[in-house]
Amino acid sequence: MEVRDYELDSEGIVNNANYLHYLEHTRHSFCTANGLSFAEMQAKGLVPVLNKVEIEYKTPLRSGDRFVSKLWLERKGVRFIFHQDIFKSTGELSVTAVVSCVCLENGRLDRGDMLAEVFEDFLS
Amino acid sequence: MEVRDYELDSEGIVNNANYLHYLEHTRHSFCTANGLSFAEMQAKGLVPVLNKVEIEYKTPLRSGDRFVSKLWLERKGVRFIFHQDIFKSTGELSVTAVVSCVCLENGRLDRGDMLAEVFEDFLS
Amino acid sequence: MEVRDYELDSEGIVNNANYLHYLEHTRHSFCTANGLSFAEMQAKGLVPVLNKVEIEYKTPLRSGDRFVSKLWLERKGVRFIFHQDIFKSTGELSVTAVVSCVCLENGRLDRGDMLAEVFEDFLS
Amino acid sequence: MEVRDYELDSEGIVNNANYLHYLEHTRHSFCTANGLSFAEMQAKGLVPVLNKVEIEYKTPLRSGDRFVSKLWLERKGVRFIFHQDIFKSTGELSVTAVVSCVCLENGRLDRGDMLAEVFEDFLS
Repeated sequence: MEVRDYELDSEGIVNNANYLHYLEHTRHSFCTANGLSFAEMQAKGLVPVLNKVEIEYKTPLRSGDRFVSKLWLERKGVRFIFHQDIFKSTGELSVTAVVSCVCLENGRLDRGDMLAEVFEDFLS
Repeated sequence: MEVRDYELDSEGIVNNANYLHYLEHTRHSFCTANGLSFAEMQAKGLVPVLNKVEIEYKTPLRSGDRFVSKLWLERKGVRFIFHQDIFKSTGELSVTAVVSCVCLENGRLDRGDMLAEVFEDFLS
Repeated sequence: MEVRDYELDSEGIVNNANYLHYLEHTRHSFCTANGLSFAEMQAKGLVPVLNKVEIEYKTPLRSGDRFVSKLWLERKGVRFIFHQDIFKSTGELSVTAVVSCVCLENGRLDRGDMLAEVFEDFLS
Repeated sequence: MEVRDYELDSEGIVNNANYLHYLEHTRHSFCTANGLSFAEMQAKGLVPVLNKVEIEYKTPLRSGDRFVSKLWLERKGVRFIFHQDIFKSTGELSVTAVVSCVCLENGRLDRGDMLAEVFEDFLS
């Protein structure tokens, strides 16, 4: 991905909240690429919900920077933990984050088996 | 309202797209204050849709600026035209905009009578 | 480009302000691709400033949609007019916009000759 | 503060990144209210930098929700730790966050004494 100038703040670096946008877009792209159908989930009353994000800011991204956004995944009980890193195209680490999601079924906590099935090749 | 620092861009002025956010929030606050129920509209299959925005940028808003966002309303055929101005607390005009909306009923153009009823005291 | 899910609003379509982000990113990419150096401009005290946007919303973009963002350019006195269109990958027109910019030199209106030089191959 | 509709995502709840905007605006308002001059800091080459955010999402905010954003502050070595909570007007906890900042002086880590002086009445 590439920094877009409207994502910068008045110090000329990407605003802290926009990294959460990058991370979300990465997770959604990963899900879509692996055939996870949000429509199918919704039809079954399943909703994935973010419950915790820990993010460390290492090196700010600036105008024109290109970056790579990576993730790996683990399952801990009912939670899916996304380990996400954003690297500048120079190889430098920009942010590192741990993002925890759960799955709700009609408002109640679900075991997440449908998600687990989709992700089985990736779950450690 | 008041400028929030995350709305600034790297030149230290509010990014052009954020004025559309201010204008939208103003319209929604106006609708809510006048008892327009989006839930009731949705139950009838009615959806208000933006079809045109003309916005002129006069004086940029900066960190810490406070501003007043005003509107008046007219009906032209099936369109509702919002005339919107944002003034800095100093009285200076910041942006002036003309925003045109229509109402869809189950995907087809609606005459907008439900909206007109809500807005009747304001329609010129 | 591709719609990112955080750009959607509660109706599941891209929020009206985000199209201005797409249009800005397109202009900046065009400028960069043609060798316009904002650093060089700033060193000369030149600042490009948006003074008017007219945008018509034709077909909303939704989750997963891919789109192409095009522009052409004309000069009218001190103004540079960007004519911008966003097409869905299906070929359908999503938004069409006319964006007017001027160039300030140390806060005063500039004739824009530096910009014109960069853009000369594109100016009609 | 109050939820603005453009902050919602397609599920009708505030998008996860927007809570970071609320938290940032709260910190900046707190600083300004306590006489911290960013201009004065910049003149001395001091830049406050976010280095870590931990945020837990408890109850989503929705259209029309009003909320109160609170913080308290501690100093740990060179870091300033903001403990921040957002409560719905019903009293329910929406998000709870721990935000860690440092102060850079001309790109190098600063002891943060200038910030500490401003915040001294609040530091535990």
